Amino acid sequence: MKEGLNRVRESRPLIHNITNYVTVNDVANVLLACGASPIMADDYEEVEDITSICNGLNINLGTLNRNTIPSMFRAGAKVNALGGIVVLDPVGTGASRHRTETATALLNRIHFDAIRGNSSEIKTLAYESGCIKGPLQAGGGSTKGVDADLADSVTEENLDQAVTFVKEFARKTRSVVAVTGAIDLVADDTQCYVIRNGRPEMGCITGTGCQLSGLTTAFLAANRSDRCKAVAAAVCAMGLAGEIGWSNMQPGDGNATYRNRIIDAIYNMTGEQLEEGANYEIR
Amino acid sequence: MKEGLNRVRESRPLIHNITNYVTVNDVANVLLACGASPIMADDYEEVEDITSICNGLNINLGTLNRNTIPSMFRAGAKVNALGGIVVLDPVGTGASRHRTETATALLNRIHFDAIRGNSSEIKTLAYESGCIKGPLQAGGGSTKGVDADLADSVTEENLDQAVTFVKEFARKTRSVVAVTGAIDLVADDTQCYVIRNGRPEMGCITGTGCQLSGLTTAFLAANRSDRCKAVAAAVCAMGLAGEIGWSNMQPGDGNATYRNRIIDAIYNMTGEQLEEGANYEIR
Amino acid sequence: MKEGLNRVRESRPLIHNITNYVTVNDVANVLLACGASPIMADDYEEVEDITSICNGLNINLGTLNRNTIPSMFRAGAKVNALGGIVVLDPVGTGASRHRTETATALLNRIHFDAIRGNSSEIKTLAYESGCIKGPLQAGGGSTKGVDADLADSVTEENLDQAVTFVKEFARKTRSVVAVTGAIDLVADDTQCYVIRNGRPEMGCITGTGCQLSGLTTAFLAANRSDRCKAVAAAVCAMGLAGEIGWSNMQPGDGNATYRNRIIDAIYNMTGEQLEEGANYEIR
Repeated sequence: MKEGLNRVRESRPLIHNITNYVTVNDVANVLLACGASPIMADDYEEVEDITSICNGLNINLGTLNRNTIPSMFRAGAKVNALGGIVVLDPVGTGASRHRTETATALLNRIHFDAIRGNSSEIKTLAYESGCIKGPLQAGGGSTKGVDADLADSVTEENLDQAVTFVKEFARKTRSVVAVTGAIDLVADDTQCYVIRNGRPEMGCITGTGCQLSGLTTAFLAANRSDRCKAVAAAVCAMGLAGEIGWSNMQPGDGNATYRNRIIDAIYNMTGEQLEEGANYEIR
Repeated sequence: MKEGLNRVRESRPLIHNITNYVTVNDVANVLLACGASPIMADDYEEVEDITSICNGLNINLGTLNRNTIPSMFRAGAKVNALGGIVVLDPVGTGASRHRTETATALLNRIHFDAIRGNSSEIKTLAYESGCIKGPLQAGGGSTKGVDADLADSVTEENLDQAVTFVKEFARKTRSVVAVTGAIDLVADDTQCYVIRNGRPEMGCITGTGCQLSGLTTAFLAANRSDRCKAVAAAVCAMGLAGEIGWSNMQPGDGNATYRNRIIDAIYNMTGEQLEEGANYEIR
Repeated sequence: MKEGLNRVRESRPLIHNITNYVTVNDVANVLLACGASPIMADDYEEVEDITSICNGLNINLGTLNRNTIPSMFRAGAKVNALGGIVVLDPVGTGASRHRTETATALLNRIHFDAIRGNSSEIKTLAYESGCIKGPLQAGGGSTKGVDADLADSVTEENLDQAVTFVKEFARKTRSVVAVTGAIDLVADDTQCYVIRNGRPEMGCITGTGCQLSGLTTAFLAANRSDRCKAVAAAVCAMGLAGEIGWSNMQPGDGNATYRNRIIDAIYNMTGEQLEEGANYEIR
């Protein structure tokens, strides 16, 4: 895992983010923390220019709107034409028809190198896009807004089924698919990293998922030869930062301080620390 | 007061926020800190869907614009139709004609369960909407942008008059009205909580008012049987968090750290702590 | 330098910001930290009203878009008509044709009291606007998104040439020009402050430049008699805050905590501390 982080620090990729205004500052700071350089730009008139000078594009649906949606399609198409890296974070897919349709349309028209979401978002996207059919479809993905519904969670009990599901969705989309939660899964069509880093308290901070999608884009941009491992390294790094950040908490600290400590942990993380702390198996 | 907080933690209400991009991250984190789950969504195409799956809607005029204003009307009307909870934070009312007109139009077309602002915003809204007439009208509300003008402040000297004013505005709007500042007032038509929690240094942080409007929505969503008490509990919780956060300040700390410590204090606050720390009388 | 800060704290100027959604919260908090009062407003319908009640306008191109660009022109023209203070932060100029054209058009149609950017942004703006011609023009400004390209940096080796360049750009624009980086330059047509405050680690935080542009606007609004010195005082204050903040870092702290410590240092900074800590010469 260490090369994944080390290469980001060496190559300092420039990452173009079309993202939401809720967590954008944390996404920028976590990208700087890992050694990348962020630029946020979402106007239709400039996204092609911006993405052309960048090493990766991170599309996040958090506060999608009539101005930014066309920019997402335009920038994504440009990256595909240039053979660059592009990542989708389908925030809140399932929470509104508009979000689900936008996510599905993006998936149909753009090839993403990676898709990262919580279990509800990924399930909804897989079913609604028609990528996965079958007995599960009747249930669809549930939604609790931008948080995963408990019913969709990956657990030790449903792990085999979940791994099969994620690999299948990866096969259909030719993307690396990352489903993050208590247990994280990162899969392409042949292998699935099952990752057990992180802390449940990370769910009490807004934007840890958005930050991870930023990191994922940076790790992919700097590690193009093994995309699945690159995404797994990003997921391990974020989870490990959650563990380190939590171990640094003092009495009276809460979720606002924890947010800072996680980004700080990414800033201070070495490749060796990531190598040692990454807790995963490959299935 | 403790039930107010405890019920938020038990029911974990999902809160829809159409809010400004200045303080949105803090609003999301304070909602998570109190036990609620935030979703920020402001596109016209999705606000009805989003608000339909939520337990409360928080409308904040902080950076209102041509795209979000129609979304505010649409989402507010939907919540009214569904019988849900909706709160108005008329940020900067009085600072521009456009803001004042938008706030007034929202008040005329949507029934709000609560309206929370500083004294200048509430005064301007009460006069401009025509809800309150009389000798005070000539003065109108003053403005210092998004901060209250000193001339409008609630003080021990004008307290009786202010209580009467707030009750009257609450009666006209059938809303709980919360005017926050050095002394906070939370009133319906029959009673007014006079609250003396908080610290003057909270005024050196952007967004404590916006955060409180988020909390207010969550407390109302989880405590629908006594709306006035629910809002008072939210106001006490925010003020108490300001006191606890300040007591945790170290040499060299300033307003950026104080911001985090306040959200942290909400995260760690128990119902019992709120019950003990709440400093109020009912008039 | 101390008067620069002291007058901000005494007069508490109200600053109108049309700025990006990435760093807006930090800009608001740093303005509060220095004693100013921020208001963020970018809707075309209200920017004239808002800017008319303010003491300074800060225009930042960070996430410029079709809605905010017309607002920038409108607000800037209004401030010029009123004889007020207006500052330009041409974030990312050179990173897209759209950004460069917008920055150039703003420069052509509005008189700015100060322009603050990194070396790549200022170089691109100076050449593209036609303000500076000559042998350097072939090179243009480089771009690394919103960060300065190393090739454009002000160093001890190219300092004389850089000072001449900045003075010339200031002369052509009748603005105070601030180029910030490892060495900061603040010039009008006759003098150039060469400032050596700050820490290289400030480049690992998003928005220190945006924060400085906010401070610059506040310092100018409160110190209109010597504009060049006012901007230099703001630049020294930000750099000194970076030094103080860094000296307060604890093991495990990273860029997220550093961000807070810098704003905290502005909050606690006295005029005397600024006077003593400011490290500059005038050329």
